[in-house]
Amino acid sequence: MDQSGVLVRADGRAWNELRPITIERRFTSAAPGSVLITAGRTRVLCTASVDPQVPPWLVGQGTGWITAEYSMLPGSTSPRKQRERSRVEGRSAEIQRLIGRSLRAVTDLSALGERTITVDCDVLQADGGTRTLSITGGFIALVDALRMILPELSDPSRLPLRDSVAAVSVALWGENLILDPDQREDNEAAVDCNIVMTGSGKFVEVQGTAERVPFDRFLLERMLDLAANGITQLTRLQREALGEDWPWT
Amino acid sequence: MDQSGVLVRADGRAWNELRPITIERRFTSAAPGSVLITAGRTRVLCTASVDPQVPPWLVGQGTGWITAEYSMLPGSTSPRKQRERSRVEGRSAEIQRLIGRSLRAVTDLSALGERTITVDCDVLQADGGTRTLSITGGFIALVDALRMILPELSDPSRLPLRDSVAAVSVALWGENLILDPDQREDNEAAVDCNIVMTGSGKFVEVQGTAERVPFDRFLLERMLDLAANGITQLTRLQREALGEDWPWT
Amino acid sequence: MDQSGVLVRADGRAWNELRPITIERRFTSAAPGSVLITAGRTRVLCTASVDPQVPPWLVGQGTGWITAEYSMLPGSTSPRKQRERSRVEGRSAEIQRLIGRSLRAVTDLSALGERTITVDCDVLQADGGTRTLSITGGFIALVDALRMILPELSDPSRLPLRDSVAAVSVALWGENLILDPDQREDNEAAVDCNIVMTGSGKFVEVQGTAERVPFDRFLLERMLDLAANGITQLTRLQREALGEDWPWT
Amino acid sequence: MDQSGVLVRADGRAWNELRPITIERRFTSAAPGSVLITAGRTRVLCTASVDPQVPPWLVGQGTGWITAEYSMLPGSTSPRKQRERSRVEGRSAEIQRLIGRSLRAVTDLSALGERTITVDCDVLQADGGTRTLSITGGFIALVDALRMILPELSDPSRLPLRDSVAAVSVALWGENLILDPDQREDNEAAVDCNIVMTGSGKFVEVQGTAERVPFDRFLLERMLDLAANGITQLTRLQREALGEDWPWT
Amino acid sequence: MDQSGVLVRADGRAWNELRPITIERRFTSAAPGSVLITAGRTRVLCTASVDPQVPPWLVGQGTGWITAEYSMLPGSTSPRKQRERSRVEGRSAEIQRLIGRSLRAVTDLSALGERTITVDCDVLQADGGTRTLSITGGFIALVDALRMILPELSDPSRLPLRDSVAAVSVALWGENLILDPDQREDNEAAVDCNIVMTGSGKFVEVQGTAERVPFDRFLLERMLDLAANGITQLTRLQREALGEDWPWT
Amino acid sequence: MDQSGVLVRADGRAWNELRPITIERRFTSAAPGSVLITAGRTRVLCTASVDPQVPPWLVGQGTGWITAEYSMLPGSTSPRKQRERSRVEGRSAEIQRLIGRSLRAVTDLSALGERTITVDCDVLQADGGTRTLSITGGFIALVDALRMILPELSDPSRLPLRDSVAAVSVALWGENLILDPDQREDNEAAVDCNIVMTGSGKFVEVQGTAERVPFDRFLLERMLDLAANGITQLTRLQREALGEDWPWT
Repeated sequence: MDQSGVLVRADGRAWNELRPITIERRFTSAAPGSVLITAGRTRVLCTASVDPQVPPWLVGQGTGWITAEYSMLPGSTSPRKQRERSRVEGRSAEIQRLIGRSLRAVTDLSALGERTITVDCDVLQADGGTRTLSITGGFIALVDALRMILPELSDPSRLPLRDSVAAVSVALWGENLILDPDQREDNEAAVDCNIVMTGSGKFVEVQGTAERVPFDRFLLERMLDLAANGITQLTRLQREALGEDWPWT
Repeated sequence: MDQSGVLVRADGRAWNELRPITIERRFTSAAPGSVLITAGRTRVLCTASVDPQVPPWLVGQGTGWITAEYSMLPGSTSPRKQRERSRVEGRSAEIQRLIGRSLRAVTDLSALGERTITVDCDVLQADGGTRTLSITGGFIALVDALRMILPELSDPSRLPLRDSVAAVSVALWGENLILDPDQREDNEAAVDCNIVMTGSGKFVEVQGTAERVPFDRFLLERMLDLAANGITQLTRLQREALGEDWPWT
Repeated sequence: MDQSGVLVRADGRAWNELRPITIERRFTSAAPGSVLITAGRTRVLCTASVDPQVPPWLVGQGTGWITAEYSMLPGSTSPRKQRERSRVEGRSAEIQRLIGRSLRAVTDLSALGERTITVDCDVLQADGGTRTLSITGGFIALVDALRMILPELSDPSRLPLRDSVAAVSVALWGENLILDPDQREDNEAAVDCNIVMTGSGKFVEVQGTAERVPFDRFLLERMLDLAANGITQLTRLQREALGEDWPWT
Repeated sequence: MDQSGVLVRADGRAWNELRPITIERRFTSAAPGSVLITAGRTRVLCTASVDPQVPPWLVGQGTGWITAEYSMLPGSTSPRKQRERSRVEGRSAEIQRLIGRSLRAVTDLSALGERTITVDCDVLQADGGTRTLSITGGFIALVDALRMILPELSDPSRLPLRDSVAAVSVALWGENLILDPDQREDNEAAVDCNIVMTGSGKFVEVQGTAERVPFDRFLLERMLDLAANGITQLTRLQREALGEDWPWT
Repeated sequence: MDQSGVLVRADGRAWNELRPITIERRFTSAAPGSVLITAGRTRVLCTASVDPQVPPWLVGQGTGWITAEYSMLPGSTSPRKQRERSRVEGRSAEIQRLIGRSLRAVTDLSALGERTITVDCDVLQADGGTRTLSITGGFIALVDALRMILPELSDPSRLPLRDSVAAVSVALWGENLILDPDQREDNEAAVDCNIVMTGSGKFVEVQGTAERVPFDRFLLERMLDLAANGITQLTRLQREALGEDWPWT
Repeated sequence: MDQSGVLVRADGRAWNELRPITIERRFTSAAPGSVLITAGRTRVLCTASVDPQVPPWLVGQGTGWITAEYSMLPGSTSPRKQRERSRVEGRSAEIQRLIGRSLRAVTDLSALGERTITVDCDVLQADGGTRTLSITGGFIALVDALRMILPELSDPSRLPLRDSVAAVSVALWGENLILDPDQREDNEAAVDCNIVMTGSGKFVEVQGTAERVPFDRFLLERMLDLAANGITQLTRLQREALGEDWPWT
């Protein structure tokens, strides 16, 4: 495996380089959290809404809930993607379950009180990495929504968050490991690994998939290393975007 | 009815004044047409995609088709709006049929060849006037998509468009007629009128609805006058946004 | 535009003549209101049912609700129309929303108490004008249902109705304006206008649509004139059908 | 069991008496067969439509198909019955399968050629016996539709029918067997039996159901006797309604 | 009709012989009743679950309910059968209604208290007779579930059952009547009769269907005789399977 | 973390011990592959069916496809699980996508020709580990189905398989890592890891999820070690079950 750095990617990135990322908070104002996050050509609008109710199975337990929905706008791909209007595709169901689990893993649900926060991740343009970018952007929308309701919480002195969370994808592309593949690289990859980690460097979710050929332990270790590196960069970007609102100092 | 102009609207507008409108072409790049149009707090992403096929009932007739889909993102309203994932609501169905008819009315479908253009209008933020803004913005996305496929048309020397099209809403609010009501004004209005007109001043669609009390012919005439005035402004904005790409000179 | 009256329509009608209309009250007896209304070959069964409940958003407000459903029987057209058994088509959704709004516009919902009246319009045979005939017949079914529950209302001395309501269609067919087009005329029309008006001559809904070419203000004015003329005739027919039960004397 | 005839039913009928039946052919004219059949307060509109195609599993076999759909209009009952718009209820599915089987049992499908006849049975008013009345009326609609397409069949000299078919219900009501129960009698019955028979007295379908208590062979025999008696009357009424068009002389 | 016994069936059975039947109680242990019943190549897993609630229309009446669901696993047939994941087929709806009615007919619902027992019949392999085998096996699962909740019933000294119930199919195959046809025999049969009877020899349900040609009274009588014979054998097998747990001694 | 082996699990297993596993091939005979696999109280019926067609996107490419469906029978859990009859749950969608990917990863799809093999995994009883057991059992059903069609393949001398595949779950339960947790252990686990590996020890899928608290790299490494150990045992059991039919010698 050549990791010498002489690898030239189509967009000029080094093998261990993220796409340029921009984070626009308060992109809309109807939902308390609203973040337009862009990584290269992939753009996701993440909004976080608060509902003063919990799902039936949590009623009366004094604890809150966080859930997520994921969808791709029809114009986000070429050719146009059909709208999921009569049923949710398996892929969307799988992705939105992942986003919800990831955000819950860093939240102190009991400190939230009986509220549900729904994080909607709508992909405006898809060029690979939509699920990981949804988690990275969704966390910022979640922070903004939590700030909004902070005065109503039982302990208004601290956000009910234990850590930050971000996600990144790593792929085996030809003989090379690459960070944050775009759609074309992803389609050609033999192994694909999505990693969700906290700001303090712990794993929330590890999903490695052999798209074509099974992979060995050594490769898995290298993918984890590369992902951890990407998460560090993403966490720094999240911290910059939140500025004063970053929950930890 | 007081039309003296001393009317003060919540956002400071005069009775016959549109909200500030911005039009951002090529907001995304997967779809050939992609326009983010904003009127005050209402924001709609209009994308136009081209499919080299027509619906079954048009196959073999050498003519094209334009259709539209309309949807509100869950975070576009407060409280959050549920996603239409198991069925399309009657309201959405009605609106997307209106958008499709309006765009077809100014297009030369036979010059389009056997292609379908789908204009997707996804509301990122809703503060009234989403259906009319979808038409105004959708027209620009349509022009951009038509420019893209122009070389493939039977007559590549001219866009298959007969006129431009835009839409605006007029309401009877208390004793006053107002142009382009926002959501709060719309909720309080007694009569609501959506007008779709061409750049040359002809009607494509007139929809006047008594929300509370039936209205008389005199009021209808005044609403048509006010709407025509708004359409003239909107057409000018469309022309500016398209610049060199405006199909007529 | 030739309005000289020498126009000969396929069924021998003059340009400003309605189809022969028959109204059969109490066609069935399970629902409190049941009207079979026929205009030429178009036949609609309108039933009005009363439910001692209101939709969730009205509970506890002391006001009632009127809603409508519209459907075409499979045998109402040739070729047979497929049943809407897995989803409601956009066209049906649009029509039933129009019927509901029209009936609510003349009803004093607060005097109705917490009840829902559902007006079902089932098209037994379709030859154009089904939505307007549904409104004209639906109003009579509504009156019959209101008569039935009158003793239970807070003010049993008067029907909770402010006016009557009827609807008619007008079309630009070739160079001629025609009243109440049948299916063939409707298919060939360049402009189609559905008008809902009260017995006292006010507008409830104006829906003018350019099917092929945009139309000018002068034509719209002539269509409104012709529609008003048709509504006057329809109101007289409704009054005759209701006889003693006509709410106003 | 008292079968002495002194039994007095709510509507004055004898135990072995059908409700008064009227049959109105060509009630509508869009579908080739259209029959409004009424038995007491139960009214069903049966239309038969012809489609020059067969279901996928019959394509290329030179044989035809007959299918049925059954539905109750919302206003056919009190309280109002909800429309089956998102799914077909088990009861409706069961009934329409029965109607289809019954009509196919007397038809020479191979003489029909590759055509599908769909018999739609829409219940305008329901007071018991809707499924059996649908079969009795559906047969007449089928004859009318077959007459219409007769010239196109391979043998235009004879209708592709082997026999007539009709259906009736029999119930054990208290200690008494009764013919053709209405809704109230049906609700109170302990045993319910639907019998479909041909004009020549053979069984097409026998469906006996213990609603409350299992029944013995002797009772089943008596129910079959009573049903056969009812079928004879129904066949005579079908023959009268068809007059010259009765397929056998 | 040749009933001489010289008839040779494909699997060597005599005309009046059931397929070999095995009954495996407590096949799984999550549900209180779980029976794997096998007749030749047809295998059905019947589980009975208890829910301490009744359907809305029974709430507060102090009586219980028994319902059934029927489904075929995709691998139960060749070619593979599609899963009913978006809608229930008419055939499945019809069968599960039959199973539910049959089990309710022998149960004392009022002695059950406000509980619902759901009997799920999942066909693991289908070779004809799945609906009748579901009833025969479902009864045993029901007994096991009732035994489990007996201590909680108002009268814990007796099972709330009035009789046993079993079902069998009879067919006219060529010139011969045969008992318990397998799939191939069923496909070739001219008349098919499903009979549900109690252990004491009474009818719960009689469903005779002319698949090809209408049948006469004499044949129906012979089918009832043959079915009664089969039910006697099935009841004995149920009794053996339940052993000590057979509710009657 | 205590891995001393003094850990006592509820069922007496050691921390690194699988539940007792039985594999019953040819449990049914309609589908070419049919395996009932049992691990403790969890039981899954895996059938593999062959369809001589491929999905639309593969037509004409000369390659085959393997897909999977996963479902839990209602009686597989207590309380009873509702049937997925109107939509597929997100969890089921996610699981069946995992099963399909895992089986495709070891199959030479191009050697399969234009055929689809569908592996249906129906859970008869659920006590944790249903998704991993579905993969382990599904592989055996796949081998049996491939054996059946081997003579029809382009190279009938070898099964189109590159490796075997099996799956196992590992959990952090209190302070201990445990192999193959049952439902109760799984519910109490803080971290859950599903590993799919080939017989030759390579990874097909790694899915580690922090159910409650994020985990570190050291724990992940230990979970991978433990899983690899379990896979080795499972592969040996698969080999024993297949005996002569094991594709490699």
